Amino acid sequence: MKAEALAARMDRARQAMSEAGVSAMLLSLGADLPWLTGYTAMPLERLTMLVIPGPRGSGTGHDGQPVLVVPELEAPRVAPVPDVFSVRPWAETEDPIAIVTDILHGHGSLLGGHGSLPGGHGDVGAGSVLAISDRAWATFLLRLQRVLPGASWRPASDVTAALRSVKDDAEVEALAAAAAAADRVAASLLGGDIPLVGQTERQVSAQLTRRLLEEGNERVNFAIVASGPNAASPHHEPTERTIDRGEPVVCDFGGTRDGYCSDITRTVFTGPPPPELQHIYEVVAEAQAAGVGAARLGSPCSAVDDAARKVISDAGFGAYFIHRTGHGIGLEEHEDPYMVAGNSTPIVAGHAFSVEPGIYVPGRWGVRIEDIVVATADGPVNLNHADHALTVVPR
Amino acid sequence: MKAEALAARMDRARQAMSEAGVSAMLLSLGADLPWLTGYTAMPLERLTMLVIPGPRGSGTGHDGQPVLVVPELEAPRVAPVPDVFSVRPWAETEDPIAIVTDILHGHGSLLGGHGSLPGGHGDVGAGSVLAISDRAWATFLLRLQRVLPGASWRPASDVTAALRSVKDDAEVEALAAAAAAADRVAASLLGGDIPLVGQTERQVSAQLTRRLLEEGNERVNFAIVASGPNAASPHHEPTERTIDRGEPVVCDFGGTRDGYCSDITRTVFTGPPPPELQHIYEVVAEAQAAGVGAARLGSPCSAVDDAARKVISDAGFGAYFIHRTGHGIGLEEHEDPYMVAGNSTPIVAGHAFSVEPGIYVPGRWGVRIEDIVVATADGPVNLNHADHALTVVPR
Repeated sequence: MKAEALAARMDRARQAMSEAGVSAMLLSLGADLPWLTGYTAMPLERLTMLVIPGPRGSGTGHDGQPVLVVPELEAPRVAPVPDVFSVRPWAETEDPIAIVTDILHGHGSLLGGHGSLPGGHGDVGAGSVLAISDRAWATFLLRLQRVLPGASWRPASDVTAALRSVKDDAEVEALAAAAAAADRVAASLLGGDIPLVGQTERQVSAQLTRRLLEEGNERVNFAIVASGPNAASPHHEPTERTIDRGEPVVCDFGGTRDGYCSDITRTVFTGPPPPELQHIYEVVAEAQAAGVGAARLGSPCSAVDDAARKVISDAGFGAYFIHRTGHGIGLEEHEDPYMVAGNSTPIVAGHAFSVEPGIYVPGRWGVRIEDIVVATADGPVNLNHADHALTVVPR
Repeated sequence: MKAEALAARMDRARQAMSEAGVSAMLLSLGADLPWLTGYTAMPLERLTMLVIPGPRGSGTGHDGQPVLVVPELEAPRVAPVPDVFSVRPWAETEDPIAIVTDILHGHGSLLGGHGSLPGGHGDVGAGSVLAISDRAWATFLLRLQRVLPGASWRPASDVTAALRSVKDDAEVEALAAAAAAADRVAASLLGGDIPLVGQTERQVSAQLTRRLLEEGNERVNFAIVASGPNAASPHHEPTERTIDRGEPVVCDFGGTRDGYCSDITRTVFTGPPPPELQHIYEVVAEAQAAGVGAARLGSPCSAVDDAARKVISDAGFGAYFIHRTGHGIGLEEHEDPYMVAGNSTPIVAGHAFSVEPGIYVPGRWGVRIEDIVVATADGPVNLNHADHALTVVPR
């Protein structure tokens, strides 16, 4: 990311803080931090936290520059961006919570002492509204609450979710490149290049992982392989079960490539499926297409879920579709917007999300088909192009 | 884990809750949950939470059975353990926070309605002390605090850290097996089987990852490869930098094998190091041995840090040793006890931890050597056995 692009995002975030009445935002784990700085905190017991004061003249917070409080041994990893944020490394025997609160109170040397949050030492932070990363560890929030007893707290997603859920052109391009890489792995699977029969689920999962890394992913986030009756478990953990002939195999995998995530599911068959299972596959494929087709600007996110669910319910399998139809995707595998009953958020251009209905018959089998879709003024655009036709491998 | 072993752990945890005055414990992400149930929560936006009421007759909490609140689509992954915990799956349109609070209030059907936390509906949870997983997402803690405004909160580690930090024989065996697998990867590195010169850091990191998976790790947690001047960055992220002849290469890697973690660091050289760097290597090796030697029962954890740091400081490199000497290891890569200045916790038999001093000269080079050690009545026992001698590869 160029410094100007990060600066523009930071300005938008601070404007949104002002509108939401947030005095300061404290970002740690999760994607808000890399979205604004290019830096990702390590998920460790040493606190990393970006302190973002409210914007100048907002009446909330002071107007100093954001400061990234980071463990000294990780500081060499950080590339500070002038005019966006500075860095305050903390040594092993310092208390990072005290450093964060010092910055909030405006007497941290890096903020030059101008301005401070409401509240004196008797009721520290009283009246201030602080937003913390949704995924920050609870233990850090508890420590902050102890030293800032008067502050009220909100999840940072109240500020950032709406901003991050609308992808700009560069982000859509990054998602498309990640999806194309996942498609190439799916093609290996559908083409029979990844052996299934006689392999364990864990072995096939390892092959999908290897292929995702070969396709330029810097990280593989998951590689679900669920065969036979295990296919009825949507978030199945691959086991030592050996895949037999004549079974469905649900493969759901995704990685992170240049920072952006992929997520695709194909269900393949190690032999011609019986008519009942073939029918289920056709219903899921039809539901998936219906979900994509419903992703029109202005429609509520729930419309995508409604459309996919209607196809499955009408076919009599409603009780076997036990999860929402989709989730937003970007720097995180799961983020806003969620395609779920009750989500009335209108779909806007730049929303990127999965459409992944499934039918799961406990003890017997399961089928899921998933693509990533971007909403545009010209209608929904599929980022994945791997075949949806029922595929028996080896062909 | 056998059901009886899990039941015994749960009894100890509930006893510790009682001693700590904790009314109920709420376990989500992190290793407390798998330590007590064998089940690991997925790090996703759908809440997984084990509700553990305080023990019978403790005056805190009610005495019902622990209940695991889990997303319906992940419920097939859970193997409930009779007499240890039951399972309450929640559907996509249910509110898991409401389910957790219902269970806390004792009118969740699974607890049979006997007993409840102090506090009526006017001041819900007043006077009760709730402990939540250290790594639970802040957003879930905020939602719980909103519906339980009278409760006070503590990190679950107040209850669990002391229990989990003392490994039993089976856990030490699992750590030893994980260490032996890491040693075999280190042997590949020291033996020159993993090419370095002409490779990028990322390529070498991928090779270490591949070897760790071949050695039976179900997961690779990190594979730091830091070459030349990058070696001065302790938590370096491997880059596209190509490794040259005559450089130090710090390789720090670990995985999870049968649930338990490994963590080892070796610094190898792609050519004979200059005398100054050779001297630094010898100082670090001496500091590492001194740290291990100080791990005697009854000594404070800080003694391990003191001993290693003294060797480095006496040699004049104190300013370049910018992190603590070690961390506990078990189900998590980093857990109690921490070998750091100020930690007066006495070392007891079964404490397992890293000893990993380093010297980092910014812009020039760095060296670190790390082994996992278990404290025993017969003195410290090294779980890693890969060579410490200065190694030039290819030999």
